[in-house]
Amino acid sequence: MSATQPARGTRDFLPGEIRRREHVISVIRRVYERYGFEPLETPAFENIETLLGKYGEEGNKLIFKILRRGEHEGTGEADLALRYDLTVPLARVVAQYQNDLPKFFKRYQIQPVWRADRPARGRFREFYQCDIDAIGSTSPLVEVEQLSAVSEVLTELGFKDFVIRLNHRQILTAILREFFDLEESKHTQALIALDKLDKIGAEGVAAEMEERALCSKDAALQGLQRMLGQELEGLKRHLTTIIDLSRSTAAGDRIRFDPTLARGLSYYTGAIMEINVPDLAGSLGGGGRYDNLIGMFLGRDVPACGFSLGLERIIVVMTERNMFPEAVARGGVDVMVTIWNETGLGEAMSLASELRANGLRADVYPEPDKLGKQLKYASSRNVPFVTVQGDEERARGEVGVKNLRSGEQTAVSRAEVARFILDAGNQ
Amino acid sequence: MSATQPARGTRDFLPGEIRRREHVISVIRRVYERYGFEPLETPAFENIETLLGKYGEEGNKLIFKILRRGEHEGTGEADLALRYDLTVPLARVVAQYQNDLPKFFKRYQIQPVWRADRPARGRFREFYQCDIDAIGSTSPLVEVEQLSAVSEVLTELGFKDFVIRLNHRQILTAILREFFDLEESKHTQALIALDKLDKIGAEGVAAEMEERALCSKDAALQGLQRMLGQELEGLKRHLTTIIDLSRSTAAGDRIRFDPTLARGLSYYTGAIMEINVPDLAGSLGGGGRYDNLIGMFLGRDVPACGFSLGLERIIVVMTERNMFPEAVARGGVDVMVTIWNETGLGEAMSLASELRANGLRADVYPEPDKLGKQLKYASSRNVPFVTVQGDEERARGEVGVKNLRSGEQTAVSRAEVARFILDAGNQ
Repeated sequence: MSATQPARGTRDFLPGEIRRREHVISVIRRVYERYGFEPLETPAFENIETLLGKYGEEGNKLIFKILRRGEHEGTGEADLALRYDLTVPLARVVAQYQNDLPKFFKRYQIQPVWRADRPARGRFREFYQCDIDAIGSTSPLVEVEQLSAVSEVLTELGFKDFVIRLNHRQILTAILREFFDLEESKHTQALIALDKLDKIGAEGVAAEMEERALCSKDAALQGLQRMLGQELEGLKRHLTTIIDLSRSTAAGDRIRFDPTLARGLSYYTGAIMEINVPDLAGSLGGGGRYDNLIGMFLGRDVPACGFSLGLERIIVVMTERNMFPEAVARGGVDVMVTIWNETGLGEAMSLASELRANGLRADVYPEPDKLGKQLKYASSRNVPFVTVQGDEERARGEVGVKNLRSGEQTAVSRAEVARFILDAGNQ
Repeated sequence: MSATQPARGTRDFLPGEIRRREHVISVIRRVYERYGFEPLETPAFENIETLLGKYGEEGNKLIFKILRRGEHEGTGEADLALRYDLTVPLARVVAQYQNDLPKFFKRYQIQPVWRADRPARGRFREFYQCDIDAIGSTSPLVEVEQLSAVSEVLTELGFKDFVIRLNHRQILTAILREFFDLEESKHTQALIALDKLDKIGAEGVAAEMEERALCSKDAALQGLQRMLGQELEGLKRHLTTIIDLSRSTAAGDRIRFDPTLARGLSYYTGAIMEINVPDLAGSLGGGGRYDNLIGMFLGRDVPACGFSLGLERIIVVMTERNMFPEAVARGGVDVMVTIWNETGLGEAMSLASELRANGLRADVYPEPDKLGKQLKYASSRNVPFVTVQGDEERARGEVGVKNLRSGEQTAVSRAEVARFILDAGNQ
């Protein structure tokens, strides 16, 4: 007998969970479409060279690699690899279809990605990313639109307390040079340490910077003090336009300049941004400008900026806060047709067809059985209405409609059943 | 510079293609929900033992295997494998969550599967399956509901000429025993040959049966003659109920009994079914009853029946027949806001926000540019309306709305722009 668990770090999604996920995804998709983003999908696996070397040393180790097939299987070599994020495939697509895509390509992409991370609470090996990216323009309008779009998504989902943190890679670079006296070659290492300020505090970051041989702990602490102080006013100018232009949008009063925001990824070149809520340690999403990545596929740089919402984290917070609408929590069936006996099967199918033609989600109990058992089954599945057609009802051209919440049963003429349930369901 | 093609046998889906796919998927999903099927999703990869040995010798070779990671990478061993179909993962899920699932579990699942087949016209290594399955009942109502559901899907998509072929594995077994004089152990091989009757004709099948050392070519031809003749009336009884009960459903006048229908898969135990249209060599979908598969995971048999629609083939036929609605063919943007100059950026964002709040899909040209260039860009993207806000318009509190199809430009008061475009777009 085969084992029945899903692979480590992955999840099966049963119907109730899918409904919650679909609710979130449909809001994301609708808002992104409203902002003029268009859908893109790429294959689950890529040629292995497409992915290797794009995510740094650590990333390389977390890529799932696919064994060559047939006669080559024995070599133990891999020629394909599972998608690790949605940004590198996008860069490849922009290079491959440059003549077919609009000059300003705005796409959204909602697909799973796979990382061979050690599974932990809230960290999976298969999880969805929901990305928007805009290719081809350096205008700050690009950032403004993306911040507005993700703000509208969160607002429509019911979030009222999120904050957008905004920073600029060049401001960080200036800080590292001026306040910490660090040369360019040490900036990537410093950003990794700085990115943990939220989690381990100034003392922790300073200790880590000393450990990484960037500077002494004292020098690091001094730098952090200046950074968190008031000396940054002059550097904010780059971001003022974004904040000003956002005023009339959904992101308007959410944006805060935050000089400590670092974002781990090394490919960012301009504005960086992140969305947080108070009750989640990580972020609900983040993004930034990366003007050089596409060049790795195209041979010439193309400006680009993107934002990624974390579906799994959004669902975690919404579940903990009980934010899903009642309709999502309910089951997926509006009415169940019960079966009286063998001779009633055809009539049951015909009634079900009519209910479905009226847009009701109708289930049919598949075989003759005691009525009590059928009602119990419908109750256990949260179905609000069942129909009962005994010999008497059929003789009178009627159908019994039982409301399983109130327990009330009403005799309804055969032609009126769908209308009756639709009306009763809307009360 | 990295190569930019997708991996062999896989496809990138650009926005226009996604819209066609989404149109088909949304119809499938809506109809399946109406029939009381509930959504399920399983991970892209499974533990390798879950898949191996479930698809026969040929199937095993076509499974994509994932290399072990970290210190084990060098062994060249695989511990995970990509989903090969949606039926085996379902069987695993039914066994794993038997206490959480309803007694009669009806699920639909629309996800990609991966097979290391040699790519050919219309055959891909990544493709979608759209499955419905009903677990827990041997009632013929199960088959009736599934045939009705897939018929309704195809009808809603605009198919008017599909035919459902219906057969029963036990009828086939009887035929093989009585007409071909073949013992049970040779039936799987014989079914593989018989499955090709449509493609290679009686002569071809008979030759192949001889080749496979099942019987002489003459004996095979004689068997085929009896099978295609009229001697089967007595065996049809098993299927009469299904055909009778289907009469009041969407599948009503589509079903034909076809004693030649074999379906390659070895796990079918009862009714088997397939949907065809005249202009496609393969089928649009198929399915059948498999009452033993779940037992491989659960340790006891559970009755089950399923039907799988082939998304890729449906899209091929719909594209060739030009069956997609006009709205699907159009672009994804209703209106584009043009940019007059730097000082107009804030006003443009505010206008875009308003249009979006009214449900319009609005794009903003990202940077100041010549108006002619912006209009040309909107035209090339099939956007029907653009807004123009020059200094004059702004002074008068108006916005110019240009209809790019008629070329007509109308001055509309700022507060009325969304309403104007919504009205004009509906004409």
